[in-house]
Amino acid sequence: MRLSGLSERSGVSTATIKYYLREGLLPPGRQVNATTAEYDEEHLRRLRLVRAMIQVGRLPVATVREILGHVDDDSLGRTIRLGAALWALPQVPEPDAEDRYVRAARQEADELLRTLGWSNAALLTSISPAYRSLVVAVAALRRLGHEWDAELLVSYARLMHRAAVLDLDFVDSRESEAERIETAVLGAILVDPMLQALHRLAQEEESARRYGFE
Amino acid sequence: MRLSGLSERSGVSTATIKYYLREGLLPPGRQVNATTAEYDEEHLRRLRLVRAMIQVGRLPVATVREILGHVDDDSLGRTIRLGAALWALPQVPEPDAEDRYVRAARQEADELLRTLGWSNAALLTSISPAYRSLVVAVAALRRLGHEWDAELLVSYARLMHRAAVLDLDFVDSRESEAERIETAVLGAILVDPMLQALHRLAQEEESARRYGFE
Repeated sequence: MRLSGLSERSGVSTATIKYYLREGLLPPGRQVNATTAEYDEEHLRRLRLVRAMIQVGRLPVATVREILGHVDDDSLGRTIRLGAALWALPQVPEPDAEDRYVRAARQEADELLRTLGWSNAALLTSISPAYRSLVVAVAALRRLGHEWDAELLVSYARLMHRAAVLDLDFVDSRESEAERIETAVLGAILVDPMLQALHRLAQEEESARRYGFE
Repeated sequence: MRLSGLSERSGVSTATIKYYLREGLLPPGRQVNATTAEYDEEHLRRLRLVRAMIQVGRLPVATVREILGHVDDDSLGRTIRLGAALWALPQVPEPDAEDRYVRAARQEADELLRTLGWSNAALLTSISPAYRSLVVAVAALRRLGHEWDAELLVSYARLMHRAAVLDLDFVDSRESEAERIETAVLGAILVDPMLQALHRLAQEEESARRYGFE
């Protein structure tokens, strides 16, 4: 398809597509003559991914370029490639390692991984932004004197593992490796807001079932 | 306890506590003489809640005051009281009702509620910010041409319902009604970041289990 066709099918203006091409977020089309290039389904897919990162994820162009660099680096194994792409997403800053709540939260998080038998995740704790986010979230609970018990954390983690199985089953069902990596990145941006919305809706439903509306 | 004791036990400076008192976010202590007031466990709990909303939830003081107004309004039933408190949290803006993806997402969300049998949540769709967030999230997926199937959405929703059951079991286990409402609001601020971190960690674990590290 031509540039105008790509614009029509994606709903993205030709001016924006040209901007993405200039910024290297979209690979150039196949040049058919001096003024015309052809684009294919891969361009359309890539354009949707870029759109998701910029419009929904609100990522800056430089971050999008970094993530795409990992997505396209097929010299890496899939776990590392996916990890590198996901870890380029905005993350919580490193917590203060001297803070006593942070130290306690780290112990609690390590204990949680042992209880769950998540030995792979346990190998990544020194570099994983997900682990860091968990430490920050648990430290916040503890600093506020919240008495959440460790068992509840385990139950939440088991539910989230089932969500991860659904995610990866869906990723694995995609046909090409390029699609699988792109779906994973798209999922990282789009799925969490959806899970959060479903969680709040489920709370409304469950709350009304238990206490009624009066 | 005195103001200094409240500061010590909460980790919040006396200057900040005085500010919260002036702003009406914390009820005044029991005046024992012209210069001294006594504070109790309820003040401590309320201070933690205010702290969570301001420091972790990054809510403006006016929003915190609004939420506390609902938390303290015991003329309302519990579902409404909780809803009013949670709905005062920052929410996604109303989507464009004329947009065709938004219209399709609304149908999809309604269909989801029917499939799940969430008849209570279905009664609230015209006012619920959670429903609105879901519509926005689903519209984003569809606009990007993402082929997520409806069945996957149902599976995610079932998991989130189990999370809501855990949430409300924990809330119900609190001793006083005031504590239950406060725990629910605290949970709304603190639990979702934790679930998101657990979700990402679970993805790392599951990804490494399936594809190894190479």
